[in-house]
Amino acid sequence: MEVGRELIRVDAADKVTGRAKYTDDFHEGPMLVAKVLHSTIANGLVKSIDTSAAEKVPGVVKILTCFDAPAIQYPTPGHPWSVEAAHQDVCDRRLLTDRVRVYGDDIAAVVAEDAVSAERALRKILVEYEEYPVITDPERAMNAPGVPVHEEHPDNILKSMNFDVITAGADVKTAREVLDDPRYHHFTGRYETQQVQHCHIENPISYAYMEHGRITVVASTQIPHIVRRVCGQALGIPWGKIRVVKPYIGGGFGNKQEVLYEPLNAWLTTQVGGRAVKLDVSREETFQNTRSRHPIRFALEAAVADDMRVMARSVRAVSNQGGYASHGHAIVANAVTGIRQLYPDALAHHTEAYTVYTNLPAPGAMRGYGIPQGDFAIECFMEDMARRMGWDPYEFRLRNLMPLGYVDPTNGITCHSTGLRECMEKGAEFIGWRELREKYRNQTGPVRRGVGMAIFSYKTGVYPISLETASARIILNQDGSVQLHLGATEIGQGGDTVFCQMAAQAIGIPTEDVHIISTQDTDTAPFDTGAYASRQTYVTGKAIKKAGEEIRDKILNYGGELLKRDPHGLGIRGRDVVDAGTGEALLSLSDLAEEAFYSLEHSVHITAEVTNHCKENTFAFGCCFAEIEVDIPVGKIKVLRIVNVHDSGKLINPKLAEAQVHGGMSMGLGYALSEEMKFDPATGRLLNGNLLDYKLPTAMDTPELTALFVETDDPSGPFGNKALGEPPAIPVAPAIRNALLHATGVAVDTLPLNPQKLVEAFQSAGLIE
Amino acid sequence: MEVGRELIRVDAADKVTGRAKYTDDFHEGPMLVAKVLHSTIANGLVKSIDTSAAEKVPGVVKILTCFDAPAIQYPTPGHPWSVEAAHQDVCDRRLLTDRVRVYGDDIAAVVAEDAVSAERALRKILVEYEEYPVITDPERAMNAPGVPVHEEHPDNILKSMNFDVITAGADVKTAREVLDDPRYHHFTGRYETQQVQHCHIENPISYAYMEHGRITVVASTQIPHIVRRVCGQALGIPWGKIRVVKPYIGGGFGNKQEVLYEPLNAWLTTQVGGRAVKLDVSREETFQNTRSRHPIRFALEAAVADDMRVMARSVRAVSNQGGYASHGHAIVANAVTGIRQLYPDALAHHTEAYTVYTNLPAPGAMRGYGIPQGDFAIECFMEDMARRMGWDPYEFRLRNLMPLGYVDPTNGITCHSTGLRECMEKGAEFIGWRELREKYRNQTGPVRRGVGMAIFSYKTGVYPISLETASARIILNQDGSVQLHLGATEIGQGGDTVFCQMAAQAIGIPTEDVHIISTQDTDTAPFDTGAYASRQTYVTGKAIKKAGEEIRDKILNYGGELLKRDPHGLGIRGRDVVDAGTGEALLSLSDLAEEAFYSLEHSVHITAEVTNHCKENTFAFGCCFAEIEVDIPVGKIKVLRIVNVHDSGKLINPKLAEAQVHGGMSMGLGYALSEEMKFDPATGRLLNGNLLDYKLPTAMDTPELTALFVETDDPSGPFGNKALGEPPAIPVAPAIRNALLHATGVAVDTLPLNPQKLVEAFQSAGLIE
Repeated sequence: MEVGRELIRVDAADKVTGRAKYTDDFHEGPMLVAKVLHSTIANGLVKSIDTSAAEKVPGVVKILTCFDAPAIQYPTPGHPWSVEAAHQDVCDRRLLTDRVRVYGDDIAAVVAEDAVSAERALRKILVEYEEYPVITDPERAMNAPGVPVHEEHPDNILKSMNFDVITAGADVKTAREVLDDPRYHHFTGRYETQQVQHCHIENPISYAYMEHGRITVVASTQIPHIVRRVCGQALGIPWGKIRVVKPYIGGGFGNKQEVLYEPLNAWLTTQVGGRAVKLDVSREETFQNTRSRHPIRFALEAAVADDMRVMARSVRAVSNQGGYASHGHAIVANAVTGIRQLYPDALAHHTEAYTVYTNLPAPGAMRGYGIPQGDFAIECFMEDMARRMGWDPYEFRLRNLMPLGYVDPTNGITCHSTGLRECMEKGAEFIGWRELREKYRNQTGPVRRGVGMAIFSYKTGVYPISLETASARIILNQDGSVQLHLGATEIGQGGDTVFCQMAAQAIGIPTEDVHIISTQDTDTAPFDTGAYASRQTYVTGKAIKKAGEEIRDKILNYGGELLKRDPHGLGIRGRDVVDAGTGEALLSLSDLAEEAFYSLEHSVHITAEVTNHCKENTFAFGCCFAEIEVDIPVGKIKVLRIVNVHDSGKLINPKLAEAQVHGGMSMGLGYALSEEMKFDPATGRLLNGNLLDYKLPTAMDTPELTALFVETDDPSGPFGNKALGEPPAIPVAPAIRNALLHATGVAVDTLPLNPQKLVEAFQSAGLIE
Repeated sequence: MEVGRELIRVDAADKVTGRAKYTDDFHEGPMLVAKVLHSTIANGLVKSIDTSAAEKVPGVVKILTCFDAPAIQYPTPGHPWSVEAAHQDVCDRRLLTDRVRVYGDDIAAVVAEDAVSAERALRKILVEYEEYPVITDPERAMNAPGVPVHEEHPDNILKSMNFDVITAGADVKTAREVLDDPRYHHFTGRYETQQVQHCHIENPISYAYMEHGRITVVASTQIPHIVRRVCGQALGIPWGKIRVVKPYIGGGFGNKQEVLYEPLNAWLTTQVGGRAVKLDVSREETFQNTRSRHPIRFALEAAVADDMRVMARSVRAVSNQGGYASHGHAIVANAVTGIRQLYPDALAHHTEAYTVYTNLPAPGAMRGYGIPQGDFAIECFMEDMARRMGWDPYEFRLRNLMPLGYVDPTNGITCHSTGLRECMEKGAEFIGWRELREKYRNQTGPVRRGVGMAIFSYKTGVYPISLETASARIILNQDGSVQLHLGATEIGQGGDTVFCQMAAQAIGIPTEDVHIISTQDTDTAPFDTGAYASRQTYVTGKAIKKAGEEIRDKILNYGGELLKRDPHGLGIRGRDVVDAGTGEALLSLSDLAEEAFYSLEHSVHITAEVTNHCKENTFAFGCCFAEIEVDIPVGKIKVLRIVNVHDSGKLINPKLAEAQVHGGMSMGLGYALSEEMKFDPATGRLLNGNLLDYKLPTAMDTPELTALFVETDDPSGPFGNKALGEPPAIPVAPAIRNALLHATGVAVDTLPLNPQKLVEAFQSAGLIE
């Protein structure tokens, strides 16, 4: 079995020795450098730009302003395109804009021989603005008077939804009816999450040049094939005229699931005769001008029966979309859908959600895609309800879990497998749940301890909300090894390694004989929408399986020809074609391959290329248990022990799965305890957009992380596997918040749980003066 | 019709603007530089190498000698591999050798941080040799006493052949019998060609680095897939562990149809931890250490009947192979076979050929692969026989031409089409053959004029002597354009452009909608043996045609699905799917493609990848007519007018065909008039291995070149086309030599026809004192 092996990553040695090449390691001859001029207001119009002094800076090659850029609006999110206008992403972005909507909007660009000249020129550009009032609060932005952020949306609401889902067989008409039913216990809660940034190591750098009248963009992206399409759209040229190359990338976490600066870069090279132009994006620009996690405010209501059964809930969510649509309403929609799915209501569920334009930098996709926000809300709410009722929160959750066979009534996503109950047991056992819940019940003094938990569910890929399609190509080499050629991307998560294992498994050869093409070149790489939605092992995995089986069959057919035997009686084992019955080695794959290439009788280059149009989905599950110590006077939480337990189906590579969970837990800890993008509400300006002021946890801040698994065998997954990429980040923050509640009795309902906020909360609760 | 269009090359703009990238334009981060230490003797043994002083040179990273290199012998020629040992190329090369066979043999290499440090270190390496006598003359080398060049060949004969071919139905047993028959006129002639170099603009540069435990070699080569295999063989590692990338190259002409320094470069990177190492090969090294055209000595005999019919001939050829086998006996074999085929003897033909090792730099493949040498011999011989008999040499040739339907009795290559007679008519008419032959008959004085002609035939590809196999992959883009993905290579000849035209023709779309992947990457590019033997338009062309037809059918099937129509009633015209009957446009290809990518019903990424195992061959033909003026006292030939007329079947792109002929004629002029590698026979050292001393003609030396065509429609060619790449260089030298004979009555039977030689010849003939 190649699937399930704890192999070292195929890129491990290159990455630890520094041999692995990232976008900035390539140099297409001497490259020009482009720098972007950002607005110094958050809302208004650019009246004029005077570049005359800047043009005189030595080394400046070209200055282009919003008045030069094509008047094309294009979409930026990394979704498959839709042939139906109604399902297409919102086109509200221009390469350079004269309508400023956020502080730091892109209004001009300098192309120079070097970065210093470009920076010098930037400082000499004079801009005249007409300023509008700045709105940063989404609830104030809704139907605010004055100029809307986008003319097409006078109420500043990009999109909203408001509907009830009545459980099949329930004899009710609305959720409200149940919520108002006096037979049930009634609860409300308000929870709010903050805006945070992905903080991938590598900024979203790119460079572009022209060849053959076409534009090549080399970019740090999760979605090269989508970048190709969007660059074509943004420049108004046929999409086939764009080529995108993706080398190794230093993390993405969803920020590189959006087409950010590649179109501008593509356009800039066309303005300097096709010369190579590097668009270097600084850390400060990454904070200010790329994406982040949506801050969402939730208002929840629930009606719960005496037997702990949740009969109905109402969820209202307001998501701050900032100045541009980015992924649009999809993220808050995912958040509220996730709340509905994790605990299917006995009778009815009400959903109300708003995505609202403001003058803040636009959030977009980030690991979990709304679910970390929604999970924080529902898992705090569940905890609070249990506490009010004096119920064991573990039992309360257990009573309401999504069951095996659950089918979502609105989109049909089905629970094909679930190990959630076992995950909870394993986590509770690890942390000593029952003992500690009891032990920490009645504490006094300045330092107290608590345990908390949170669970989650997470779908795998985007079907049926959107298209799931992926192709894979496998090529037999002259030595019997194979090349694996994908449009799916390694973004640091270990994708390349598990793809190789999958191909090896499907063909029947050792993983060591599968050579991955790690760099995607859209000119030659099979189409794949890329790394997002924890989809690749599931959707691309099926494409790999199909391609592996196809090339195996082709190899066996050729082997049958050489051996003069029925190919159906042949198999592949290790490096040989074998008798499928006896296992006897009949012909080495290297001899077969050499013959296939060089036979004077029948030369054929054996390859397989297949598309997997995936029309399935399934749920992954998991939970987090945390034991913390709270220093009440200084408002500091210390995580003593923390464990995530995941049901992601069969693990393709347990070591990599563990690493994935560690990374997600670390991200969850920053989300829980310290990270927050802070803005000046008067100007809309980001106040801490750098890694000194933004409190990203370091290794020193990180406790020992434990990752455990419950392996189910999902019948819909290509190898029994389901989503794992995003889930680990989800349950950490609510587990810690619930542990804090357990330790202190104080419910903090906003993130992050940093000392300033905790001290204030403890003061309000009378724990300190 | 896309085939036949006079399109501008797809790479034209990039090449004239300098945007096109060659190997030296890429930089994989800071690269180490390797330089090779060459022997200062031509024959002997390296006893010891002292690198101690060199190791101390600052910047030196590693010094490797012949005593460090693996003891593996490998083959270097660019042939498809053979699974049968008897047909495999000779393995007589090591990465670095202690057995020196030529002056400048590779005995050590320095890897340093920069070129200057590497050069400094080279000069500090001390080598102790044991010297053997130097043999440079092949006839003296045969069975010479002393140490043979290669132990495996004590007589220094790499290979020889000696056989008669009796024409079907002829009532004779041997060619000798006919040659001695007193009923026929009997003739003998001796002709000799010189050693020349390809002089491509770009030296055979490469660089190599490691990734994923595999070696990548970026190289200026005509044959990336073969370089992959040979690097694997040379290093003794699985061939799948090697990746070869071929960017644009600055000419090859056969010198880059050999795997020269890539294996050494691949090995060097493994010795410095996989760091990128550039192996820069200077012009001097290109002359001394890469390949050249074989000097061949021919001795011919013929028996000719009164009616001008050649009854039998004997051809004896001795080819100087220098110190290494390179392409081995194949080249002289091709030379003598070409002589036999061009004028099939009425009764019998005797062949005797020797490939002999000496201590000169080894010749290899060069445009024409022996045919320019053989054509010089036979076309001088035909002229000399006609002159002796007082026959019109034009009529004498016409009487003996290969007829349509000719089948070579030894290899079965068939003349499927011939326009040779028409080529001769067209050439004769252009030059005014009959008038000038008469006009220049009886000249006196120091400056005289003459006209000469020569014809040739040339097969297309290497079948059935060797394997012909090629694959092509075509990918439908999202905008309805396609990518064309080949292992066949653009080497400056315009291959990419005609490949695009062929794909467009096969699919039914405009060539502008075909985007070629010009760079071959053996990890992803379909297999193809590469650019040589004028094979690509014929062999790869068929693969493109098949792939084009396959993707067209897939597109129409998908179109039928969308249109709910029988795909057999559909066609592609321009950018639309049309009703095959009425031509009515039904669906644009861009809409179809967008649907195929993004359909929620049926998403499929339409591609086609096919192998063409080519089991056909055919003859191309042509001739050259030249009018010259000879300044007898200074021995200088001035070419007044020169025309090549070619039958290469249907022309895919007449403009590019003309350019190909111009280039070949220019190469032929240098071969005829000035080029020659000169060696010191005592030391074997090349005396003029640089572009100052080696007399390559420049634009100033080149007369107006006229290229004309007779288009036949060859039934075996994918689009009626046949060989054109190599033929133009073939007939120029004999045409000029024959014009010299016509002008002066002096037969010069060796090349080049330079002033020194002509003055001597004119002195011998008594024309000057």
